[in-house]
Amino acid sequence: MSKQAPFILTIVGGGSTYTPGIVKSLMVRLEEFPLKEIRLYDLDAERQLAVSKVVEYVIRQHTNDVKLTVTTDPAEAFTAADYVFAQMRVGKYKMREHDEKIPLRHQVVGQETCGPGGLAYGLRTIEPMIQLIDFVEQYANDAWIINYSNPAAIVAEGIRRLRPDAKVLNICDMPVGVMRNMAAVLGVEREDLTVNYFGLNHFGWFTEVFVDGEDKLPELREHIAKFGLLTEDISVIDVQHSDPSWVKTYKNIKPLMDYFPEYIPNPYMQYYLMSTDIVDDSNPEHTRANEVMAGREKTLFEAIRTFEETGEMPEAFHVGVHGIFIVDVAISLAFDRRERHLVIVENNGAIANIPDDAMVEVPAYITSHGPEPIRVGHIPLFYKGLMEQQLASEKLLVEATIEGSYEKALQAFTLNKTVPSARHAKTILDEMIEANAGFWPDLQSRHTLVRN
Amino acid sequence: MSKQAPFILTIVGGGSTYTPGIVKSLMVRLEEFPLKEIRLYDLDAERQLAVSKVVEYVIRQHTNDVKLTVTTDPAEAFTAADYVFAQMRVGKYKMREHDEKIPLRHQVVGQETCGPGGLAYGLRTIEPMIQLIDFVEQYANDAWIINYSNPAAIVAEGIRRLRPDAKVLNICDMPVGVMRNMAAVLGVEREDLTVNYFGLNHFGWFTEVFVDGEDKLPELREHIAKFGLLTEDISVIDVQHSDPSWVKTYKNIKPLMDYFPEYIPNPYMQYYLMSTDIVDDSNPEHTRANEVMAGREKTLFEAIRTFEETGEMPEAFHVGVHGIFIVDVAISLAFDRRERHLVIVENNGAIANIPDDAMVEVPAYITSHGPEPIRVGHIPLFYKGLMEQQLASEKLLVEATIEGSYEKALQAFTLNKTVPSARHAKTILDEMIEANAGFWPDLQSRHTLVRN
Amino acid sequence: MSKQAPFILTIVGGGSTYTPGIVKSLMVRLEEFPLKEIRLYDLDAERQLAVSKVVEYVIRQHTNDVKLTVTTDPAEAFTAADYVFAQMRVGKYKMREHDEKIPLRHQVVGQETCGPGGLAYGLRTIEPMIQLIDFVEQYANDAWIINYSNPAAIVAEGIRRLRPDAKVLNICDMPVGVMRNMAAVLGVEREDLTVNYFGLNHFGWFTEVFVDGEDKLPELREHIAKFGLLTEDISVIDVQHSDPSWVKTYKNIKPLMDYFPEYIPNPYMQYYLMSTDIVDDSNPEHTRANEVMAGREKTLFEAIRTFEETGEMPEAFHVGVHGIFIVDVAISLAFDRRERHLVIVENNGAIANIPDDAMVEVPAYITSHGPEPIRVGHIPLFYKGLMEQQLASEKLLVEATIEGSYEKALQAFTLNKTVPSARHAKTILDEMIEANAGFWPDLQSRHTLVRN
Amino acid sequence: MSKQAPFILTIVGGGSTYTPGIVKSLMVRLEEFPLKEIRLYDLDAERQLAVSKVVEYVIRQHTNDVKLTVTTDPAEAFTAADYVFAQMRVGKYKMREHDEKIPLRHQVVGQETCGPGGLAYGLRTIEPMIQLIDFVEQYANDAWIINYSNPAAIVAEGIRRLRPDAKVLNICDMPVGVMRNMAAVLGVEREDLTVNYFGLNHFGWFTEVFVDGEDKLPELREHIAKFGLLTEDISVIDVQHSDPSWVKTYKNIKPLMDYFPEYIPNPYMQYYLMSTDIVDDSNPEHTRANEVMAGREKTLFEAIRTFEETGEMPEAFHVGVHGIFIVDVAISLAFDRRERHLVIVENNGAIANIPDDAMVEVPAYITSHGPEPIRVGHIPLFYKGLMEQQLASEKLLVEATIEGSYEKALQAFTLNKTVPSARHAKTILDEMIEANAGFWPDLQSRHTLVRN
Repeated sequence: MSKQAPFILTIVGGGSTYTPGIVKSLMVRLEEFPLKEIRLYDLDAERQLAVSKVVEYVIRQHTNDVKLTVTTDPAEAFTAADYVFAQMRVGKYKMREHDEKIPLRHQVVGQETCGPGGLAYGLRTIEPMIQLIDFVEQYANDAWIINYSNPAAIVAEGIRRLRPDAKVLNICDMPVGVMRNMAAVLGVEREDLTVNYFGLNHFGWFTEVFVDGEDKLPELREHIAKFGLLTEDISVIDVQHSDPSWVKTYKNIKPLMDYFPEYIPNPYMQYYLMSTDIVDDSNPEHTRANEVMAGREKTLFEAIRTFEETGEMPEAFHVGVHGIFIVDVAISLAFDRRERHLVIVENNGAIANIPDDAMVEVPAYITSHGPEPIRVGHIPLFYKGLMEQQLASEKLLVEATIEGSYEKALQAFTLNKTVPSARHAKTILDEMIEANAGFWPDLQSRHTLVRN
Repeated sequence: MSKQAPFILTIVGGGSTYTPGIVKSLMVRLEEFPLKEIRLYDLDAERQLAVSKVVEYVIRQHTNDVKLTVTTDPAEAFTAADYVFAQMRVGKYKMREHDEKIPLRHQVVGQETCGPGGLAYGLRTIEPMIQLIDFVEQYANDAWIINYSNPAAIVAEGIRRLRPDAKVLNICDMPVGVMRNMAAVLGVEREDLTVNYFGLNHFGWFTEVFVDGEDKLPELREHIAKFGLLTEDISVIDVQHSDPSWVKTYKNIKPLMDYFPEYIPNPYMQYYLMSTDIVDDSNPEHTRANEVMAGREKTLFEAIRTFEETGEMPEAFHVGVHGIFIVDVAISLAFDRRERHLVIVENNGAIANIPDDAMVEVPAYITSHGPEPIRVGHIPLFYKGLMEQQLASEKLLVEATIEGSYEKALQAFTLNKTVPSARHAKTILDEMIEANAGFWPDLQSRHTLVRN
Repeated sequence: MSKQAPFILTIVGGGSTYTPGIVKSLMVRLEEFPLKEIRLYDLDAERQLAVSKVVEYVIRQHTNDVKLTVTTDPAEAFTAADYVFAQMRVGKYKMREHDEKIPLRHQVVGQETCGPGGLAYGLRTIEPMIQLIDFVEQYANDAWIINYSNPAAIVAEGIRRLRPDAKVLNICDMPVGVMRNMAAVLGVEREDLTVNYFGLNHFGWFTEVFVDGEDKLPELREHIAKFGLLTEDISVIDVQHSDPSWVKTYKNIKPLMDYFPEYIPNPYMQYYLMSTDIVDDSNPEHTRANEVMAGREKTLFEAIRTFEETGEMPEAFHVGVHGIFIVDVAISLAFDRRERHLVIVENNGAIANIPDDAMVEVPAYITSHGPEPIRVGHIPLFYKGLMEQQLASEKLLVEATIEGSYEKALQAFTLNKTVPSARHAKTILDEMIEANAGFWPDLQSRHTLVRN
Repeated sequence: MSKQAPFILTIVGGGSTYTPGIVKSLMVRLEEFPLKEIRLYDLDAERQLAVSKVVEYVIRQHTNDVKLTVTTDPAEAFTAADYVFAQMRVGKYKMREHDEKIPLRHQVVGQETCGPGGLAYGLRTIEPMIQLIDFVEQYANDAWIINYSNPAAIVAEGIRRLRPDAKVLNICDMPVGVMRNMAAVLGVEREDLTVNYFGLNHFGWFTEVFVDGEDKLPELREHIAKFGLLTEDISVIDVQHSDPSWVKTYKNIKPLMDYFPEYIPNPYMQYYLMSTDIVDDSNPEHTRANEVMAGREKTLFEAIRTFEETGEMPEAFHVGVHGIFIVDVAISLAFDRRERHLVIVENNGAIANIPDDAMVEVPAYITSHGPEPIRVGHIPLFYKGLMEQQLASEKLLVEATIEGSYEKALQAFTLNKTVPSARHAKTILDEMIEANAGFWPDLQSRHTLVRN
């Protein structure tokens, strides 16, 4: 039943700037996770071709025994594949820019996974994600899809609704990113931490942080009250998350915990609980999409150009927690290692006072049959109240996508805690409908006579 | 077991401007609800004495057989009382002014039951309400308390937590107010309507509006799209709710239903779903408290003065739905009439997908053993999401009051949909702590080292 | 939307011995429930023809304005019908005999609705009931089906699963039968009682019995401890339920309450809680089916013969609670009377600690849009434990029927509290499969290799 | 926070025949679980003294560094203890004999944990168990109690109700016993199995049996259909469970799975699902209590005598799964090993469609902060139906014990699936009240006037 190593692995979103980092992480751990072939799959052939140069270089520095295939053909990409890593970005950074800037025009959080931006991105992503699942079902060898695709909460709910039996393991690297910082603050390795956590994706809380069986959350709380979730010398933290945006984000853990000192929040909680501060601090003309395009994107493609011209590869990318985490998960899944990771699963009792049909982020032991989530028990009222509202927003968005319902989309936008009023919700939704032409399903109103 | 008419009835908040209206309503229906004594009870002897002049006048126009007692002594007020009508306003209009103006200073909804204002008012009211219940328990004859005291949702939850077995029936006249307007629009009597409804207090929706078994909601929807929930000629609607504030409020049913045409919202939903519009439209220097003080309060006390000077009582008050409804409920309760009214009860399954321990507003048949709520079933996601957040806010407020917890108060303020961010919540809470000195319990922080 | 009187009413199971009683009840209340046509529909043309003679006689004694149609053709029976009364007995008394005698052979309760007999009868009835619903849907005028068909719990669950949106109101006359006896004991009219009750069909408890707002359950408890649920002079109780079987059954309320004095049980609880006594007291060669065939059946058909020969109709039938109750319900349904009756509805919170998807028997106000059940709240553990087991048994039986699953049928039989062991369950099930050839769906085993 | 090895360990029930086996198991693994002192604690000084001879012998064969203390004084037993192993048998085998024989007199299952016998034993054990917890709380060093005391389901519920925050980990060796047999059948080691399982204690099912990630349940099903859960050559299985009673029990897995082939049942399910066969097969004059007294008890005490006379210790006992399992659990608990074991925990969502307040048996990872149960999800109807009934029976028994309620005791006995009728329940309960004089709380009836 179990797959036989060495494996064929397909990376969906082969042209992503994250791809080289993931491949490097794979190369470093080739003994633990033996591969015979890596396939890159993307809709954008040109971009993927460029990225594949780096990927080829990374592979060849480690081995000649792993074949690299670069393709836009699903049959070629998935036939006999054992594992699929998915990280699609539908509409790419150009559409992300809309996700971020349209809300900001109206003093509402512009963000790719939180607020109206995340909802817009969800409306774009569900259908392509389902298509991907169907390709894998059609061509691959009973493969597991390990899915990083954002907005993860909505994507996970979309899959739950439309392909409930698909072998998809939805993950997010934000919690490991936070744990990396926690470890740096505590002066230990990330692997030394055992955390308790509950939430929805990008909407959760660390409730305990054990090192050697001792809960270090009180110590972290003291530290955060001074420095946020950063080491006093911030250069200790790794590259991916140490650019100015991320530094600001980890600093905001301080005010978040000044308000709510009980648990350590997922950094994305800043968008929901400090939304007006975030907006005040944003430049509606230059958002994160612009930063990434001018930063990570540019650096990578310049490196590729240099490489093509000189044969020398600049140190333009690195193995961050993003790349490490997905390989951790894949290894535990492949070899029934039962390592304990935070993943996104159908609730079904994991959080006792949240509906069974929620997609929640909780600790799970990763077995060869998938995640074995723990039972978290009952969560306190404040978190339940926040989560129920967010959950309803995300579920309504998915229903809006499936049913093509304008009403449900507007309800989803209105429920979102970042959106101050129904008027804001409607204005933003209407502008987004225009901006997402060709990407979104057609949204119809049931009560047309009334709406004007 | 049942009480023997004629009854002794005590009105708590005897000095309220609403008291004469309630008494007039009682006089009109003396045959259905026979009384031998009406007692007015208030903490403010002077104000109550003034109001009692009108009350005396009203009673004597109808009968000489009903004794009137005016007292500030609980023993005198409650001994052998059969029914208690409660309508307390802790801190009176002066404190209401704070409830409204502090939030508005920060561009947040200032309102006596919604938003931070309602939370502040709740923190003031729970303890006096419990004291009242204990007085009734101590002195009265197994009396039912029919409770209008605002903020009703929070008061009801406070009673559920602290005196779960008390014979208190929590009611609100807003739904009957809406039904009066619906009836006017449809050209029928309010009594001709049978409605389905679910929600929390001041936070609910009419899902069906039957006249002779036919659902008139579609017809109302068409009308509202043009005129809001007002007759084309607004003078048709009665006095209490036809002052400019209320006209505006009923007009706002139109935009609310333009956004969410499915159900007819409780007018208070405007504060939650149109909060920015409400703020934009508010005068932070002159709020509803000022209006009432300059209007209903002034009119009544002027009338009293005129009456004392001239012996003539001007037509300064009237029997609105407020007075009619509480008598309706009392009669059904006294004589097991099983009339169907919207009341506030512990959920326990009434709304299947809302926690059992919520205080919800739903239809119930009023029997001599209390309300017999109907089973509403599952409600759609949008409403559930809104309600769960509001419910958590209200429950946290009650826990903050009981435990004296600053953290929970801040969580309650933050969760409230009218509050844009934790920073707003904290600022308003801190200013309110000051303004409510002597009224609120002392709120303490558990994590004092961290908070600064 | 509402139907216009006078109505067309179809009685399904026109050949039933209960039909004349129902028709007489209709005639008595013709002013309240005006009819223009009564149609009898049955699969057994001959039997129905005989019964229709009495029906014709009954109608004509009251009116010439109601047409009588007797048919085996669904189109003729249901076209333009406004109301349908259903009371089918699939396999008639011959199959009931098997339901009763097969279990008794193995010292297990043989009964038409309880124990394995009820399960067997359920397996026969679901499919014909669904066919009936489809005929009504196809031909009638958006008619309500008021359904007496047994085994009501299983039939109701089958409808819930297969035709969840059908306009079927499932009722049972056992609770009104009990209330008639209660009233006789208390010396009041049945209409004077207001009861609280919860359970599944034929599996429930009266928790309060109000007369004029006072709970008479303590008084009934004292009486029952002496006489069971019978008047001291048992001739006071009406005919239908005063034959020796029923007398015994009402007497058994005494031992049942000696064991469990809290509530007054539905008499059918004797089969579950006193199963061994019932078996000891049964004659496996002569069961209730034989009694009815020799009694009610014989009497009616002899009366018909006498009538045909002499033109004289003997007083061979009467209007019992069976006939009265269904007309009560129909009138409340037709004219939105909101009378309060015990009916069988989907739970959805009515009993807070029973699954939402159970079909439960609880009080409901009967409106023109169907039943409006009350919220009963949480029930004590003992009753929940009994109900959950029974519920699972009934649901598994319905799943077995739908899926044709031998395993689920065996699980249903084993779970039933009347069945002492899996061996008994299997033996009885296997014999019943043979006896029900042509009536039951084919039951298949999934694990055929294992079972031998 | 974690305890420092070497530890002080106290064994409650020091005089048990199981004690030497547990101590031997501890000695074998002294390096993994370092001890400085073992204390035996029992109420029966004489018996414990005898057993302690063997214990001393076992310890000294391995080490001179572990002190042995034998005491009946709680202060001496628990002061500074780090871990407590509890295995009390209140009333010893003499009372077990009553538990078994009283029901059998009435053709009802006589068993120490199932049926009325288990209920009786529960009524005896809750109070002493609570007293033990209080002693440990009073004297020990924040010790974990690992609790084997039967009837484990009822004891666990009693603790949950009365000492919800106690550090007690309730375990049972039956599942590991079954796994040992499964492993023998599959030709692997018990440690090679990873099982999924759900249930109440002595009332559960194995749903998957993984070896190297492959589910071997189908293979086991085939084997069981031939041989039950025994190797073809039964001598392969270890001693403790290979005496004739246990051979019979494991054989009965075959008929149980012939009936219900889906999952592998806990062997104790025979008492519930094959109760009549069990009764038919029992000798009411010679039950398991007699077997044990004549077997394990006699063998041990004879060995002790021989040892005292000759200085030679016969091979009279051995380390069965009983001794191994509790040490496994202790080690994982002491050193945060997060090994996966079946344990008894408060449900709180672990089984999604079972009430939160049930004590369930499910897989958990054993951490230094206690068990981390996995989320099992929804279980099928048949198992839910059986469990809900049993759960209600066990909970009512605990309530009966706490409240001293005769009614609830009778409800508990009646609900139990082994009991055919309320009459049986009452007869057995009344005889047991007499037999348990001095052991049970006094049971009172609320409705004394009625019961006669």
